[in-house]
Amino acid sequence: MNKRNVLQAIRASGQVFKAEIARSTGLSIPTVMKITDELIARGLVKETGKGESSGGKPPQLLEFVQDRHYVVGVDIGTTNILCILMDMSANIVYKHSVPTMVDDSPDVIIDRIAASIDTVIAQSEVEQECLLGIGLGMPGLLDKETGTVLFSPDFHWERIELLSALKARYAMPMVVHNVTHSMAMAQKWFGYGRDDVNSFICVNLGHGIGSALFLDGELFSGGSGSAGELGHMTMEKDGPICVCGNPGCLEALASGDAIARRARAEISVLEDAIIRKKADEGRLEAKDVFEAAGRQNDAAQRIIGDAAEYIGLALAKVINLLDPEMIVLEGGLSRAGSSFITAIHDNAQRYQMKYAGRNTRIVVSELAEQSAAIGSATFLIKRLFDVGGDQTLL
Amino acid sequence: MNKRNVLQAIRASGQVFKAEIARSTGLSIPTVMKITDELIARGLVKETGKGESSGGKPPQLLEFVQDRHYVVGVDIGTTNILCILMDMSANIVYKHSVPTMVDDSPDVIIDRIAASIDTVIAQSEVEQECLLGIGLGMPGLLDKETGTVLFSPDFHWERIELLSALKARYAMPMVVHNVTHSMAMAQKWFGYGRDDVNSFICVNLGHGIGSALFLDGELFSGGSGSAGELGHMTMEKDGPICVCGNPGCLEALASGDAIARRARAEISVLEDAIIRKKADEGRLEAKDVFEAAGRQNDAAQRIIGDAAEYIGLALAKVINLLDPEMIVLEGGLSRAGSSFITAIHDNAQRYQMKYAGRNTRIVVSELAEQSAAIGSATFLIKRLFDVGGDQTLL
Repeated sequence: MNKRNVLQAIRASGQVFKAEIARSTGLSIPTVMKITDELIARGLVKETGKGESSGGKPPQLLEFVQDRHYVVGVDIGTTNILCILMDMSANIVYKHSVPTMVDDSPDVIIDRIAASIDTVIAQSEVEQECLLGIGLGMPGLLDKETGTVLFSPDFHWERIELLSALKARYAMPMVVHNVTHSMAMAQKWFGYGRDDVNSFICVNLGHGIGSALFLDGELFSGGSGSAGELGHMTMEKDGPICVCGNPGCLEALASGDAIARRARAEISVLEDAIIRKKADEGRLEAKDVFEAAGRQNDAAQRIIGDAAEYIGLALAKVINLLDPEMIVLEGGLSRAGSSFITAIHDNAQRYQMKYAGRNTRIVVSELAEQSAAIGSATFLIKRLFDVGGDQTLL
Repeated sequence: MNKRNVLQAIRASGQVFKAEIARSTGLSIPTVMKITDELIARGLVKETGKGESSGGKPPQLLEFVQDRHYVVGVDIGTTNILCILMDMSANIVYKHSVPTMVDDSPDVIIDRIAASIDTVIAQSEVEQECLLGIGLGMPGLLDKETGTVLFSPDFHWERIELLSALKARYAMPMVVHNVTHSMAMAQKWFGYGRDDVNSFICVNLGHGIGSALFLDGELFSGGSGSAGELGHMTMEKDGPICVCGNPGCLEALASGDAIARRARAEISVLEDAIIRKKADEGRLEAKDVFEAAGRQNDAAQRIIGDAAEYIGLALAKVINLLDPEMIVLEGGLSRAGSSFITAIHDNAQRYQMKYAGRNTRIVVSELAEQSAAIGSATFLIKRLFDVGGDQTLL
């Protein structure tokens, strides 16, 4: 407990003297010295220069070691499996991406994830004892205790033992979290959440739509761990059937997949040669529709505009209900251009209640494609600082 | 701080020995004795019988005093102002209700509130020094610091200095909270929240619709204090215009006022003599529509059924987003009969995502009409136990 507090004090300060640590933690100087010696021996903290002497020996500055320990993060996306190895400051040392091929069986996909992890560990040439562990990010509802994927509509998985299947292969700690929870954790440690933003929502606008709630300084999972299923809010009771089985979910109306699906359905209205060619080849995606909209295609602009309206409307619901300090947009659609983001903003404002969410800022994540992989890895760094967390290193 | 911990330990235990308090708080026995003597002198704690002697003097049992201090709670509703005076266990000593007459000017209504408080204090014959203070519950968005009503669509109030207007008249602490926050506080202290339910939503189904979020053990107010505006979630983009100015809010589709409004609009379809008479007299209310539905009036049943569907759909959105342990229904519509509640249940289940909110229970408040008044008063009891709270008594 004291060790974690000291480590946190050092990490939070950048560079700090032992006397300051004693002051901020309330521990005695001898206790702080004993702990910092141990942290130095374990390679978590280093001495990094001296301060001004006030007569005697000049005091030693301490710093959290960024590049002695590493973590693996895996973003199990519907298109690609992105696997990274990063240091304690989220600097990415090695990165590997492989198509997920989501229609393959769970066993095959799990083998693919393992192969990706193996590649990254081998290629990065980081020593085994410097690896803190592997963090996975997976879309859908998970049982956090067992690491079972209870229901992932995007993968068509139900009750798949993801974590236990992989744990057997690696002699290091391994955790799995919902991919949007990973994104929120990345924001809290390395993104917008750093700056004293204590209540924010991460909204992942990708092939599907998900969200994670970070409320009063903690990830909020709810009573059964399913909080954040923004994508499956019913927006139109008589709308198109969603992959989850319900009608008119936000995901069925405004996700990347929904945009591509609607463009395919309206192919004759779109009258766009490129769109038609991609559709014929079976590889029409949301980004093609955004490109057509950029070419001033009216029908494409309407499809994009409707998606922005539904997303804005859903954000207005979130703002009315939760009044977050910030909404961080993540995922492919969040990078589809500023006019789309502006349209989302405008619609959120239009549908939110007067005076509600007066301080809510809607922003686009700066962690881009790496957000989920960084966040999945961050859970293992966080364990170092949690009471009852990592027992091997501390 | 120690005083508050000791008081909390005594209140939580019912009856307790000083030695047990020392054990549970980590304080020394002399410190506990000094504090309990002071709490006894202030009438917050009393000695209440003796335990078994283990040789020497038999130990003294201590108990939190329920009936020495009292609090005033005011539920400023759109129909009635309900003012209560209750003891520390929410036993109501005196109760007074007066029509709000919401179309009067804010000044007149504030005078009416004060007259109601005066009546309750005078009639209850509780000594001034035994009154902890006055808690107000008001619908709408409030500035908690100043006690200003920023926006209350039900009252058509904007920027009304409610608290400062009343504070001048009473020489005791006075607080104002959103009425649904009051309901949630009542649930936490004296209702369903007592039993270790740490994340729940109170939904007030009355003339309007509001909600309060109690998340991870704390009332959640959001970044600008506006969290919980469930009633102003847009359910139908092209729906009827709500009092808040936006189209198709839940409140505009399924509140008590919305049910009455729709019945008035469909008066010829309803073909019900009682409904028509009430409408002609300008006093048709939601409860008349429920009664007509009870008489097997098809149109009335459809109106009620549609309201239950919208409420269930909104609860499904809340469940998908927040996965609360419990949703507590409050307000007049929550007491409109079991078939209405069953219909809300069924619709929530129908629209919520598969596997989401697996542990969410939907229940009807047992505090009935008194919920908001009790909760408003409870904020003053809570101050006794809060760090930096009541300074006069502790």
